[in-house]
Amino acid sequence: MSLQGKKVAIFVDQQYQEMEVWYPYYRLVEEGAEVHVIAAEAGKTYPSKTGYPCKSDKSYDEVKPFDYDGVIAPGGFAPDFIRRHPASSAFIAQVDAQGKLVAGICHGPWCLCSANVLRGRHCTSFFAIKDDVVNAGGVWEDSEVVVDKNLVTSRKPADLPAFMRACIEVLSKQ
Amino acid sequence: MSLQGKKVAIFVDQQYQEMEVWYPYYRLVEEGAEVHVIAAEAGKTYPSKTGYPCKSDKSYDEVKPFDYDGVIAPGGFAPDFIRRHPASSAFIAQVDAQGKLVAGICHGPWCLCSANVLRGRHCTSFFAIKDDVVNAGGVWEDSEVVVDKNLVTSRKPADLPAFMRACIEVLSKQ
Amino acid sequence: MSLQGKKVAIFVDQQYQEMEVWYPYYRLVEEGAEVHVIAAEAGKTYPSKTGYPCKSDKSYDEVKPFDYDGVIAPGGFAPDFIRRHPASSAFIAQVDAQGKLVAGICHGPWCLCSANVLRGRHCTSFFAIKDDVVNAGGVWEDSEVVVDKNLVTSRKPADLPAFMRACIEVLSKQ
Amino acid sequence: MSLQGKKVAIFVDQQYQEMEVWYPYYRLVEEGAEVHVIAAEAGKTYPSKTGYPCKSDKSYDEVKPFDYDGVIAPGGFAPDFIRRHPASSAFIAQVDAQGKLVAGICHGPWCLCSANVLRGRHCTSFFAIKDDVVNAGGVWEDSEVVVDKNLVTSRKPADLPAFMRACIEVLSKQ
Amino acid sequence: MSLQGKKVAIFVDQQYQEMEVWYPYYRLVEEGAEVHVIAAEAGKTYPSKTGYPCKSDKSYDEVKPFDYDGVIAPGGFAPDFIRRHPASSAFIAQVDAQGKLVAGICHGPWCLCSANVLRGRHCTSFFAIKDDVVNAGGVWEDSEVVVDKNLVTSRKPADLPAFMRACIEVLSKQ
Amino acid sequence: MSLQGKKVAIFVDQQYQEMEVWYPYYRLVEEGAEVHVIAAEAGKTYPSKTGYPCKSDKSYDEVKPFDYDGVIAPGGFAPDFIRRHPASSAFIAQVDAQGKLVAGICHGPWCLCSANVLRGRHCTSFFAIKDDVVNAGGVWEDSEVVVDKNLVTSRKPADLPAFMRACIEVLSKQ
Repeated sequence: MSLQGKKVAIFVDQQYQEMEVWYPYYRLVEEGAEVHVIAAEAGKTYPSKTGYPCKSDKSYDEVKPFDYDGVIAPGGFAPDFIRRHPASSAFIAQVDAQGKLVAGICHGPWCLCSANVLRGRHCTSFFAIKDDVVNAGGVWEDSEVVVDKNLVTSRKPADLPAFMRACIEVLSKQ
Repeated sequence: MSLQGKKVAIFVDQQYQEMEVWYPYYRLVEEGAEVHVIAAEAGKTYPSKTGYPCKSDKSYDEVKPFDYDGVIAPGGFAPDFIRRHPASSAFIAQVDAQGKLVAGICHGPWCLCSANVLRGRHCTSFFAIKDDVVNAGGVWEDSEVVVDKNLVTSRKPADLPAFMRACIEVLSKQ
Repeated sequence: MSLQGKKVAIFVDQQYQEMEVWYPYYRLVEEGAEVHVIAAEAGKTYPSKTGYPCKSDKSYDEVKPFDYDGVIAPGGFAPDFIRRHPASSAFIAQVDAQGKLVAGICHGPWCLCSANVLRGRHCTSFFAIKDDVVNAGGVWEDSEVVVDKNLVTSRKPADLPAFMRACIEVLSKQ
Repeated sequence: MSLQGKKVAIFVDQQYQEMEVWYPYYRLVEEGAEVHVIAAEAGKTYPSKTGYPCKSDKSYDEVKPFDYDGVIAPGGFAPDFIRRHPASSAFIAQVDAQGKLVAGICHGPWCLCSANVLRGRHCTSFFAIKDDVVNAGGVWEDSEVVVDKNLVTSRKPADLPAFMRACIEVLSKQ
Repeated sequence: MSLQGKKVAIFVDQQYQEMEVWYPYYRLVEEGAEVHVIAAEAGKTYPSKTGYPCKSDKSYDEVKPFDYDGVIAPGGFAPDFIRRHPASSAFIAQVDAQGKLVAGICHGPWCLCSANVLRGRHCTSFFAIKDDVVNAGGVWEDSEVVVDKNLVTSRKPADLPAFMRACIEVLSKQ
Repeated sequence: MSLQGKKVAIFVDQQYQEMEVWYPYYRLVEEGAEVHVIAAEAGKTYPSKTGYPCKSDKSYDEVKPFDYDGVIAPGGFAPDFIRRHPASSAFIAQVDAQGKLVAGICHGPWCLCSANVLRGRHCTSFFAIKDDVVNAGGVWEDSEVVVDKNLVTSRKPADLPAFMRACIEVLSKQ
């Protein structure tokens, strides 16, 4: 249980990719961390792309980046909804500014584009959004997981084992 | 019937926004134009976000930009699938290079980002992708329709009347 | 904008055919008309056959035929629900009596059967309801659009360009 | 088992009303009859309004009215598809001409309109299609079941017990 | 109408098998019985496996076994939800103790396992739950219907005619 | 990576509970194990309760228990389909006989009932199937995870962290 005492935020909104929310969630719990699902509204149930429910714990407006050791942006089309809320981008930017874990998988890096935390940094994403990541200043590569200090990014659900192995490592060293 | 003799391409892929394909389609037909639905595969039926079917006429690989007077990129999440095919971006770039109608509505401008035709040009889109459009060099504004020479962009289905009025005007002056 | 100052009603109910509501709606708006979606309940969202939403502006009970320049009955299975409300049939009959546009496409002419406005008039519909139209006195023909004075009818979504061209012509001459 | 030796046809097509096919089916089997599900194609699985499957035994084209003691037209929107096949109307008309059971429930009487077997006869249906039934010559009344010699009609699923009680009686007296 | 004066309970919960609720329901009504749909909540609409609605009349907590002449447990996955409510098992056990009709079809015998009414009794079920029935003491056989005094069981929807023939016989002899 | 060199089978069939297949899958891969999804057919895509796809690697008929270090039976209604195949029960029974990991979560223990590996052993399950587990000889308790030598069982998705922690421990000690 290497993450006891750590608190991690996972962002969610409609059309999230099922495993890119729930694998990190259960994995961090298994490792002893406290995990909060954060969304536009607290206590609301958001459907995944196939309708799998995820109930948010807190809303962007009621959380402080200082209280968290990291933030994870899942994929699916949820990021297109997540980044409609400026508070979500601000949260990511501040966690990044504090040098704490900022992680995004699949389409999740859309949130990192809007948080403007990719300029000059090594990263990856689902290949379909590569142009947006590059246009946001990211140095994009097609790898299972890319770790650039506190920034961890991956491409797709199959990368989840490598993605979480890297996230846990970054968190445990923080 | 101000568009007789004109030929226009409408791009489509799964999860297209119903009206942002079909209103331009029927409107251009009503105005006398020949309209081709173009997708990754010819003769394939693509479902909209709610499952409304749209059968493609041709594939990106079998069409030449010179044969067309304009191209329209609809919204919904279809653009995320459309721009996975480099041939779609190349088509848009060449139509633009020839000074012919390049139009995108809602999330459609994602295709214009990947075709790299927005640098320094006035445009709009659905507000959620504004950061990607700006990062791609677009001069973004929140207007019902923005016309910058051969580039016509709008934000959402409610803008379709203004969007098509502008598209028809650009096409008829070409 | 040939229809500025005109006001047109489009009837809607569950299981409407997506394009047979929305193409007329946007087309009339593009032409400058004021368009009201009218249903059994005002302010209610009705799902199309695939679930595409359409929110009604007014209910049958709160509108007066004299205030409108025309009425359009879409297809899908919505007409089976629309004509369960006698007020909808009465509205159509009175608009017809005033010589103003009465239009129906696909299964829409079911509403015209129940409004009893087809006796001895040239018209068409989706072929599956031909017997009901003939039994209601209609002189049925298999054409893209049939115009008999203020009565405009068509068969299916593919006829929408011709259908709206005719509707706009009848409206602009009223 | 009062119907041993009797053979009854039940028509089916997409969007049939679940109970208006399956209650008659099982009820007639329980009473000893041989029941054939007949549709446009043999061996094809047709979905009900909610997707409940029904596999056809035979197609309209391969059955002879003389081989059957009766025919039942269910409701839902299936009748709108059933009567697109002239052979279905011809089958009903001939079974009627032979004085054998012709039954329709809910929207089922649409099939009887197209088979032209309602002229001057007492009947009922789902109230939404009353105008079509009256226009087809039917003497319509709002009753749980209406029996006019070999013609049995009802309005909705809740009428199924009375509907089948009457159908079994007509069949057993044939 | 051999069951006039009889009152029968049919249990229901989400994911019930459509015909294993509605065929018994309509059949018993046709035979003159009073039928109550009983579930965890009264007046609640429960969806079948495909979403076909069934509204409950009463809840387990407000009914007395003495008031009923029999109880039917349908299949689908509803029994997995039904037997989560101890009152449902208690109801079945008491009806059985009074020697009155206890019937289960398909997965319905799961409810009979939890009511502990199968020990040493001849019965059947859907083959997938045979191990649970045998482990609950049932003497399982693969027959269309098995009648052991007041206990009537069947395997699947196709057995419904035989199942209801047997249920009606047991009820009418009670 | 404590499980390098280990090979684990996860059973799957339609209506599996999403996380009870995919969390164990990714978790074991993260820990270095080789994981095979095994079902009635190899190479077939099975939908979860909400339609999330899972493609099988191998079929029950082509795998040997000796080649595996453990087997996991997920919940949802998949177990009701899994245990329709005697080869699945035989596989579990043999893995158990070899003292290797046999794990079941939620409704998964239905498979263990049919494999007859619960007699006299401490275990848990989703509470709705407790009667079946007890009738199969299991000593049931309501705990997050129950470990009885090589047998690991849990109740529901929320138990997945504890469930996998225990599975990994049993596997790594084998």
